[in-house]
Amino acid sequence: MAKQFAVILSGCGVYDGAEIHESVLSLLAIHRHGAGYQCFAPDIAQHHVINHLSGEESGESRNVLVESARIARGAVKPLTEYDPADYDALFLPGGFGAAKNLSTIAFDGPDAEVDASVSNAIRATHAAEKPIGALCISPAVVARVLGDVTVTIGREAGTIGAIEAMGAKHRTTTHGEIVVDSANRIVTSPCYMLDANIGQIADGADAAVKAVLDLCG
Amino acid sequence: MAKQFAVILSGCGVYDGAEIHESVLSLLAIHRHGAGYQCFAPDIAQHHVINHLSGEESGESRNVLVESARIARGAVKPLTEYDPADYDALFLPGGFGAAKNLSTIAFDGPDAEVDASVSNAIRATHAAEKPIGALCISPAVVARVLGDVTVTIGREAGTIGAIEAMGAKHRTTTHGEIVVDSANRIVTSPCYMLDANIGQIADGADAAVKAVLDLCG
Repeated sequence: MAKQFAVILSGCGVYDGAEIHESVLSLLAIHRHGAGYQCFAPDIAQHHVINHLSGEESGESRNVLVESARIARGAVKPLTEYDPADYDALFLPGGFGAAKNLSTIAFDGPDAEVDASVSNAIRATHAAEKPIGALCISPAVVARVLGDVTVTIGREAGTIGAIEAMGAKHRTTTHGEIVVDSANRIVTSPCYMLDANIGQIADGADAAVKAVLDLCG
Repeated sequence: MAKQFAVILSGCGVYDGAEIHESVLSLLAIHRHGAGYQCFAPDIAQHHVINHLSGEESGESRNVLVESARIARGAVKPLTEYDPADYDALFLPGGFGAAKNLSTIAFDGPDAEVDASVSNAIRATHAAEKPIGALCISPAVVARVLGDVTVTIGREAGTIGAIEAMGAKHRTTTHGEIVVDSANRIVTSPCYMLDANIGQIADGADAAVKAVLDLCG
């Protein structure tokens, strides 16, 4: 029986949603390792919309679930429907959407709030003793929810400080590397938290997915 | 000296823009084969915006260049700036954006108009005797511009009829297969014109990119 991943998306685009390369390459890695996936996202408004050409706020309003459907080709469910009993692992690609939509980490750092559907999904998966993978900035969301876990977001000092203030431990990493917190079944990789090329993102996503599958037993 | 691809995007999302998996996996394939890339897109309004969750038109207005910047992480140029002298190959992922924004193929079939920056790019690349790769529905755009070329979009009868009415030849293919028109230096693969999984898209993009590089000599 193929292992099944639940993948949490946070919109569609690095500056206001899910990072697209990390998301697609996570789905590819899951498929290449013989597992299946279902995408989920919170049915909430995006914090804001960024024009990805100019870097400026556009003034538009978009919905996280609706925009996530672009990456998922329509096949995305509201995160409130996620039940860890139906899946073997939870996986969070990165992008500013994790820090602006799934949580308020971009604005509030260690004091961030986390969307209830996201914190419920992370807590329930952890309580069910199933593994969680997270890329880029998403490990900070996992740390904010679970507290005393060990993660990596690469080597960016401000975010590392925030993660440590949340009660978590940080390990410095570079391209394609992962940190595995075996006791908590948490796998993390820095991806675009480093100045990376698309091949390094594919390597990081692949290594993280493989390690999550190893934790599935 | 690494070969350089110019990649034409058509928005961000399968139903109204560039197909995201095909776009990202084309960029990954280009990188994995040791080449570089620059993304381009027309600076024009999208034909429409589709809510990718419901499949319905949303009534919003979005710009093709601005939305393409989501896939390109901001690094996209207006297609009017493309000069084949600066690149070794031109590459078009698919998605309805190719048939609704780059051209009117979705509405007008063999009588479709093609955006002037797109037709200029294809004609100039062909005239410079440099290769062109195209995935999914994009081979129909190439056929509409160049006429007597040989391409594949898989096996969908309506689109095959339109391509033949444009004066082009069609070859039926399945997942991961390519058609190479050596005389015209055109490489095409069906990707999501077939009911495919993400691994088959990666295979098709990879095979197409490799064949384009072989034509670069």
